[in-house]
Amino acid sequence: MSAAERRIETVRVELGARAYDILIGDGLIGAAGREIAARLPGARAAIVTDENVAARHAAALAASLEAAGIAATTITVAPGEKSKSFSMLEEVVDAVLAARLERGDAVIALGGGVVGDLAGFVAGIVRRGMRFVQMPTSLLAQVDSSVGGKTGINSPRGKNLVGVFNQPRLVLADTGTLDTLPSREFRAGYAEVAKYGLIDRPDFFAWLERNWREVFSGGPARAQAIAESCRAKAEIVARDEFETGDRALLNLGHTFGHALEAATNYDGNRLVHGEGVSIGVALAHRFSARLNLASPDDAARVEAHFRDVGLPWRMADIPGPLPDAETLLGFIQQDKKVTRGTLTFILTHGIGQSFIARDVPASEVLAFLKENHPG
Amino acid sequence: MSAAERRIETVRVELGARAYDILIGDGLIGAAGREIAARLPGARAAIVTDENVAARHAAALAASLEAAGIAATTITVAPGEKSKSFSMLEEVVDAVLAARLERGDAVIALGGGVVGDLAGFVAGIVRRGMRFVQMPTSLLAQVDSSVGGKTGINSPRGKNLVGVFNQPRLVLADTGTLDTLPSREFRAGYAEVAKYGLIDRPDFFAWLERNWREVFSGGPARAQAIAESCRAKAEIVARDEFETGDRALLNLGHTFGHALEAATNYDGNRLVHGEGVSIGVALAHRFSARLNLASPDDAARVEAHFRDVGLPWRMADIPGPLPDAETLLGFIQQDKKVTRGTLTFILTHGIGQSFIARDVPASEVLAFLKENHPG
Repeated sequence: MSAAERRIETVRVELGARAYDILIGDGLIGAAGREIAARLPGARAAIVTDENVAARHAAALAASLEAAGIAATTITVAPGEKSKSFSMLEEVVDAVLAARLERGDAVIALGGGVVGDLAGFVAGIVRRGMRFVQMPTSLLAQVDSSVGGKTGINSPRGKNLVGVFNQPRLVLADTGTLDTLPSREFRAGYAEVAKYGLIDRPDFFAWLERNWREVFSGGPARAQAIAESCRAKAEIVARDEFETGDRALLNLGHTFGHALEAATNYDGNRLVHGEGVSIGVALAHRFSARLNLASPDDAARVEAHFRDVGLPWRMADIPGPLPDAETLLGFIQQDKKVTRGTLTFILTHGIGQSFIARDVPASEVLAFLKENHPG
Repeated sequence: MSAAERRIETVRVELGARAYDILIGDGLIGAAGREIAARLPGARAAIVTDENVAARHAAALAASLEAAGIAATTITVAPGEKSKSFSMLEEVVDAVLAARLERGDAVIALGGGVVGDLAGFVAGIVRRGMRFVQMPTSLLAQVDSSVGGKTGINSPRGKNLVGVFNQPRLVLADTGTLDTLPSREFRAGYAEVAKYGLIDRPDFFAWLERNWREVFSGGPARAQAIAESCRAKAEIVARDEFETGDRALLNLGHTFGHALEAATNYDGNRLVHGEGVSIGVALAHRFSARLNLASPDDAARVEAHFRDVGLPWRMADIPGPLPDAETLLGFIQQDKKVTRGTLTFILTHGIGQSFIARDVPASEVLAFLKENHPG
């Protein structure tokens, strides 16, 4: 690969004392030692990863760190959402302590969202906070969890209910890792990319409509789309680091999406997170049209784009039976984005014109779910 | 009790966006509902406490909250250091989630240091951070853990190795709770009070030498000493919230103290934390004199004061046999305040003139321990 193709995009996340850089490009695992040593001189490291990612990338990362003089230990967890548990948290914390790492040392998350969420939480609580470096290896992690500092684990009472805000010191998004990603997983991550256009970047959404094939095939458009997504999220996070306001916009599609994930028992064979987001985003536009907030043409445009790229966009696209509309509404009401009992939704006035709607009547949601229910 | 005697002292902890007030005085449990409702309107609450404190104060607090319209649930843990564990953390987190509390609701720690550390950690991680109110009921907690935002649990690999920095929104230190404190526990807490004078407030130490009897007997001098201690700690914490520099001064006496606690297997019958601090502070002054940094007269003055108030001040005061000097040094080297392998001590140039000494040779520490070892 030529030097030109190896171009690295940099996105700065402006969070004052906690500002950091996201580097995006091919080959960053090989460059990790140099990049980390330059920013965290003298630090040692613990690489937290999962078995699948470890098999592909852990040796290359360890070699890169070693070449830069960074002593590292590797901690491997089982792949999948089940590793976001209290027992795994305790296990990884203990492994980091066993390696005698100190506050100035780094926890490096090498993997997808699960690894990033778990490792970031570990880094946030060992010795009340070590340094943290994210190396996301899935599209979803590169455009979503690598920006914003949300970390955590699940509780039997719900997903992501326990964790901390912990900003990384550096994010290295090696786009080369996406070449080995299963296509269904890449596509699911793409739903979050499209989401950024639909929140507040209509030009980016239009660009995706024209260029999505290139994004999928892995040319420079892919790194460009990832960088634009990171910039979009970084801007919103910089306005509202601790999610007291505007940051809720990032939940576009997530209220419906989470309910559908819960309704399918988080069974990844039926629905993975990004697919839930895809359907959720389409439903949020359709619901906005039903409430006369946006044109039905915009909803149709969103649905057409998701259909084009091969993403599910309606409840009927989920294989197997769904619970009825009342049960789905119950899942929505349980979602943690509920504030003091009122129902908050991200709705839209059109492409790239999303907003936070508070006090959405449950009766309207229920009627909408009934109309759109495939059963 | 007259209104004059019920005077409330207020100490402001200046931490920018995380600034908060410490109210100190008699009767604050009864006033808690009013004070909390005024600062956190609309919040519900979970009271975290231990069985001993619950028996004395939980009903009064619950009544005060109820009278102010604050719905509260009470979560009771076993008293003692063993509750600072991963399993108890998980249990309390689950109880808070079971009460369906949201981010804007409050976790109230009602108890000593163990309850404060555990509840503060819970508040810091449930939904990535709820509101947190401290109601310390021991002298140690009122002058130490209520200021500074350190929270956490123990690991089998050491104390306080897992946690977060989490500043409370409000601290209510009801000095009336100290009336029912066992005298040994009050005295142990006093070691931390004296420590603040010895760090950087020579006038406060001299005041304590004159007024300690009143502080112990519970007149206005007691609230005054607590307020001055909180001010002293708040000033240092405001300079260095995340312990990257000056905050280490607060560890005066703690390096020797922690080693002695470890050497006695954290057996509270032999040595409680404040007693370890008392001996540790005296040893830090004696060690400074040995290194020709301070006058032996200052060390003698500190020892005399601790002797006067009935606190242990030398290793020989610990009942039962101690491990040898080499083993004690090993405990010191394991202490988490070790940075990158060098030995850091808080030493002093005299009363109220403490400083951070880095690169203290282990050989000097060992020789000093041998000279002062009672065995």
